[in-house]
Amino acid sequence: MINNTITAPKGFLAAGLHCGVKKSGKYDLGMIVCPGGANAAAVFTTNKIQSAAVQIAKKHVKNKKIYAVIVNSGNANACTGALGIKNAVKMCEQTALHIGEDPHTVLVASTGIIGEQLPIKTITDGIANVAGKLSAEKESGQNFTSAIMTTDTKPKMAARQIDISGVKVTIAGTVKGAGMIAPNMATTLCFITTDIAITKPLLNKALKNAIGNSLNKLTVDGHQSTNDTAILLASGSAGNRPVTSQCPRFKKFTNALNDLCDDLARQMAHDAEGATRIFKVVVNGAASQSDAAKACRAIADYPLVKCAIHGSDPNWGRIICAVGSSGVKLNTEKLSCKIGSVTVFHNGKPRKFDAQKVSKIVSQPEHTILVDLGAGKKNDFCYGCDLSAEYVSINADYHT
Amino acid sequence: MINNTITAPKGFLAAGLHCGVKKSGKYDLGMIVCPGGANAAAVFTTNKIQSAAVQIAKKHVKNKKIYAVIVNSGNANACTGALGIKNAVKMCEQTALHIGEDPHTVLVASTGIIGEQLPIKTITDGIANVAGKLSAEKESGQNFTSAIMTTDTKPKMAARQIDISGVKVTIAGTVKGAGMIAPNMATTLCFITTDIAITKPLLNKALKNAIGNSLNKLTVDGHQSTNDTAILLASGSAGNRPVTSQCPRFKKFTNALNDLCDDLARQMAHDAEGATRIFKVVVNGAASQSDAAKACRAIADYPLVKCAIHGSDPNWGRIICAVGSSGVKLNTEKLSCKIGSVTVFHNGKPRKFDAQKVSKIVSQPEHTILVDLGAGKKNDFCYGCDLSAEYVSINADYHT
Repeated sequence: MINNTITAPKGFLAAGLHCGVKKSGKYDLGMIVCPGGANAAAVFTTNKIQSAAVQIAKKHVKNKKIYAVIVNSGNANACTGALGIKNAVKMCEQTALHIGEDPHTVLVASTGIIGEQLPIKTITDGIANVAGKLSAEKESGQNFTSAIMTTDTKPKMAARQIDISGVKVTIAGTVKGAGMIAPNMATTLCFITTDIAITKPLLNKALKNAIGNSLNKLTVDGHQSTNDTAILLASGSAGNRPVTSQCPRFKKFTNALNDLCDDLARQMAHDAEGATRIFKVVVNGAASQSDAAKACRAIADYPLVKCAIHGSDPNWGRIICAVGSSGVKLNTEKLSCKIGSVTVFHNGKPRKFDAQKVSKIVSQPEHTILVDLGAGKKNDFCYGCDLSAEYVSINADYHT
Repeated sequence: MINNTITAPKGFLAAGLHCGVKKSGKYDLGMIVCPGGANAAAVFTTNKIQSAAVQIAKKHVKNKKIYAVIVNSGNANACTGALGIKNAVKMCEQTALHIGEDPHTVLVASTGIIGEQLPIKTITDGIANVAGKLSAEKESGQNFTSAIMTTDTKPKMAARQIDISGVKVTIAGTVKGAGMIAPNMATTLCFITTDIAITKPLLNKALKNAIGNSLNKLTVDGHQSTNDTAILLASGSAGNRPVTSQCPRFKKFTNALNDLCDDLARQMAHDAEGATRIFKVVVNGAASQSDAAKACRAIADYPLVKCAIHGSDPNWGRIICAVGSSGVKLNTEKLSCKIGSVTVFHNGKPRKFDAQKVSKIVSQPEHTILVDLGAGKKNDFCYGCDLSAEYVSINADYHT
């Protein structure tokens, strides 16, 4: 596949440019248009403080068809009161004007600094310009991705192609996000396009499942932002007989979507603020599903574990300490821990191990920590990243 | 008061030295002895993984009288199985031998790396030596404090004197701890001596209350260790008529104890790993006490808030984001935030403020963040510290 951007599926146009929200001159405004109208599904942050964009997009996504998505970076339009809501609506109206559709069929997303009003004139002028640049070219898809980046150091894109009863179906996605990322909508912003013909309820089901097993399994600093949004648009332009039930074709589609989202989640983890490596935490033997999830997250979010991994240090004691502190049910006589393929703690007792070997495992770009709580049969996993001095400097200096 | 160490109250001897657990040559073994026997109270970690020392000390503290406390640093004796328990018992036995008392009247504490067996011969030899150095001198109290330090950069000690019906009563305390510190037993190790005559149940009550309002309000990295222990010993040597009820004399004692513990908590926060400044979070208007505590901690533990404070950045959006993400009940129309004396967010809307002024407030050694949830009448507070690049390097390199 030559084009791996969100314009790869049939039926989508995109564009991105610098309109002036960011002082750096970097791209800060992006648009996706589906001229034929798309079935849309979306998931949003569960933070009780939700950006104006999230509040508006939540309403609009209920529409039968969605024709466009407008996104700005550099300003989150969160904690901005009634004026913030008005500005989010204005972004939809201005976009609708240029594509000749109803404002309610436009979704809006924002990311950036919290608590400042949008420079709305700059943005509405920008919307006119970005609408003039729409195309289905790869470059336009790349420009859209550039326009949603904040502290990201790399654009994050992925695409998959599958065969649905002899018809080629394409799915493509892009994400932004580096800090303020945690499970339960760890998405910051995620936009996925596909040309499959599929009903809206099934699209919703597929998106929730895919995000649940990918972006929601990712934790960078244990918090979800006020703006997290994942949108999946299906143009139906591929030409397949519409998917209307949970048939094998639906299964094929969800498998590809899950794989795409996992790819995007890993790209995000690797590009997490200051991260030099990522790790997967697998917890087995939990008494309940929520215990399994809680233990995973306790390990992946524990600063001392993240620092040890940064230092290639096989300091498993901190892993066990994090588990004990998390409040989950555990059997201290059965508790065990493996780092990569090496058992470091077994049935509540430390195991002699080759520290140099484990240090080498921990220094890889990706490794797995396996913990067995010995308390039941449930399991879960999540992705985390190391904590570096760079994370601190990025986040100490972001505002000023 | 000339002596502000744990030997200041009448009836206590102490000592500290280097026995060989730490390779650095720094002090690593400390002993407190109360030759007349002390009433003792203690609180321990609620981590489900508890060090061997904690397991043994929990049993022994139930004894009517406690004659000694033995502490090592450099090794936590945690996650060490049956051998760990045996070694903790041996530390008590060896101490008992040298003071001619029953091993069950000795309390033990350990701090340091998790998951390695104690060099028990080194420690039992050390116990013989440290018992030979016991004295009531200030220097001996200081040596004890040196012996409990791990990544602490400063010794942490405080003392108070009060008049109880014409009798001078002294309380003195020392703490260690810099990382792995969180509410619900944020104590790591804390030893308090006093010469007041008081019953054991009242002593327990006083300690729980004092720790609850001081060390348990402190969060450095959101986790409690496997070894957290606070011990309060009362020799009864001051000569006061024993305190046997919650009378005004008890109130006077608890006030002084609370003040002492608050002092120690602040000393700990200032010396937290890599911390350059501390802050107090006050949450008002909570729907419940647990919501108030949860919101406090969500703010103080949020890496992005800690980084912003490190950068003297008045980034209040991150404070509001942390509150929203914490899951507590809040009224978005009433939610307000003050940094120092400056209102930055009021009734759900941002306020224009002098960023330079707030940046100056945030750069002070100590400042207060006030959040009103607008959802009720409960309130709480906690202490936190900034997150610096040094925290990362300390914790990336601790093991190897």
